[in-house]
Amino acid sequence: MASEFDLIARYFTPDTLAPGAGVALGVGDDCALLAPRAGQRLAVSVDTSVADVHFPAQAPPEAIGHRALAVSLSDLAAMGAEARWCLMALAIDDPDEPWLAAFARGFHDLCAATGTALVGGDVTSGRLSVGVTVMGEVPPEAALTRRGARAGEAIAVTGALGGGAGGLALWQRGERDLADPLLARYLRPQPRLAAGLALRGLASAAIDVSDGLLADLGHVLVASGVGARLEAEALPLAEGLVAALGEDAARQAALAGGDDYELLVTLPADRVAEARRRLAAAGLAFTVIGEVQGTPGIRGVDCPASLGWQHFASPTAGDADDSRGGA
Amino acid sequence: MASEFDLIARYFTPDTLAPGAGVALGVGDDCALLAPRAGQRLAVSVDTSVADVHFPAQAPPEAIGHRALAVSLSDLAAMGAEARWCLMALAIDDPDEPWLAAFARGFHDLCAATGTALVGGDVTSGRLSVGVTVMGEVPPEAALTRRGARAGEAIAVTGALGGGAGGLALWQRGERDLADPLLARYLRPQPRLAAGLALRGLASAAIDVSDGLLADLGHVLVASGVGARLEAEALPLAEGLVAALGEDAARQAALAGGDDYELLVTLPADRVAEARRRLAAAGLAFTVIGEVQGTPGIRGVDCPASLGWQHFASPTAGDADDSRGGA
Repeated sequence: MASEFDLIARYFTPDTLAPGAGVALGVGDDCALLAPRAGQRLAVSVDTSVADVHFPAQAPPEAIGHRALAVSLSDLAAMGAEARWCLMALAIDDPDEPWLAAFARGFHDLCAATGTALVGGDVTSGRLSVGVTVMGEVPPEAALTRRGARAGEAIAVTGALGGGAGGLALWQRGERDLADPLLARYLRPQPRLAAGLALRGLASAAIDVSDGLLADLGHVLVASGVGARLEAEALPLAEGLVAALGEDAARQAALAGGDDYELLVTLPADRVAEARRRLAAAGLAFTVIGEVQGTPGIRGVDCPASLGWQHFASPTAGDADDSRGGA
Repeated sequence: MASEFDLIARYFTPDTLAPGAGVALGVGDDCALLAPRAGQRLAVSVDTSVADVHFPAQAPPEAIGHRALAVSLSDLAAMGAEARWCLMALAIDDPDEPWLAAFARGFHDLCAATGTALVGGDVTSGRLSVGVTVMGEVPPEAALTRRGARAGEAIAVTGALGGGAGGLALWQRGERDLADPLLARYLRPQPRLAAGLALRGLASAAIDVSDGLLADLGHVLVASGVGARLEAEALPLAEGLVAALGEDAARQAALAGGDDYELLVTLPADRVAEARRRLAAAGLAFTVIGEVQGTPGIRGVDCPASLGWQHFASPTAGDADDSRGGA
């Protein structure tokens, strides 16, 4: 295979990268040198996407590049942080030029769309996987953690749920047209960075829906020491989901399917209207789906047999764990 | 296998981590929140170490944890940066408790020794590999890049060379005693962070010797637009290297073997004494091995057949590329 240096030289050099804001020295030295803004917290997270565990190895390479960055940026969104920089660790066997070009295009296009500068990377040989470290900034008092939910507050989500699981189901049935909205939701998720910024000062707690609504809500409730009642009928279902899966499976997908990358937040009931107004300006729905309660546990919905759906897994990867926890 | 959450809960939770300086929020939320110091550049790099490519899969797990962090910290050292924080992306199949405990101990001990706080991570199933993102700080004017070498300056290295390649050779002969200085050099390299700090204001360019002296010197020369003359007799050979490999192979290991993680710097000749004085205080030798010249190329040594030795590779991993480029 081509050496790391050849690969990087072709697709990830300064020549192919837009100059990044706050980048004093980019790709090509022992480290990148960045200029964080004074008075901001640096928000950092890493997520690794593995072929045939987190995404189908046969997915379009442009989507693989986009998706690997998107799932990491989603963690910045859930923190209310502004995306600034990223690093990529790529493992790949026998790469070919067209694949790499498309992969790089998907990655670079999402960098450009979100104002994220790729400032370093690493390539090793191995089963296809993409680890992306993201760095963003947020004023200390504006950061949205999982810990702030209080009894009596509303629970709400951006956009719609179940699209990730619905798209995965379509992929497994052989659908390959990325114009299908469900498949696009699964393979090209949109990190809700603008929503995270808009919810600063309104949300008391936030998380992104990567493992499934119930699992991720559970993380917030445990961190905050509270419980919740959900309204099953209120869940906003992704476009085309009922048609693709049927009513029951669609609702299960919304409750327990992962890969949606919407934001799940808690906020005082009297701030919901303002949040809805701000998100409408960003073209996103904002739906109240329940209430924070003092008693631990989740009520109001029938819990599915397993919390957190199976993500994509090949027949030989049945023991694949879910690695979306970030942290 | 145990889920990511189980693994992290056992070995990488706040309870097992020392509180880190500048960490507003550590492991356990969507992102960590860090407090960079005003007026400093943030130096960032990522390196992935793959089993049977960059280290033997059968190496002691404590050494694997140490080594994966050390090779990333070495990039901060080469930048003259102070180590502050790291993130770890671990891929592993069928981990067992004793292995994980020892791996975590090796990683955590080097964190503690270098003042580096582990602030996030990610675990996936797969062939053993450890990706470590490091973040450090350096005043803008103090950063040591590869670009500043000027004709007439001295070329010098910290410590001794060839130990990494010598240790690898011993491992391949069946040596397993980590008390052997060469094997310790290979499996438990020491990032030269103190040397990097000491060389601030003295060195005009710097890089760490990961790919081999000639290859890494080549990176500096190309970035700086200069050439060099080396004095083969001046190369400081690692303790025990001649005894282990013989005179000729020892010298080849020093020239082209990788995995040494010493710092290779250029500096004005009249600063060498001061640099030597500072490094002696840190217990390190500092040896002038040549001179920067205006004409591109490297003179004074017989170039080995291949620049950059074979790193560890199993019989089935012969096409393994080297991924130590960082950037």
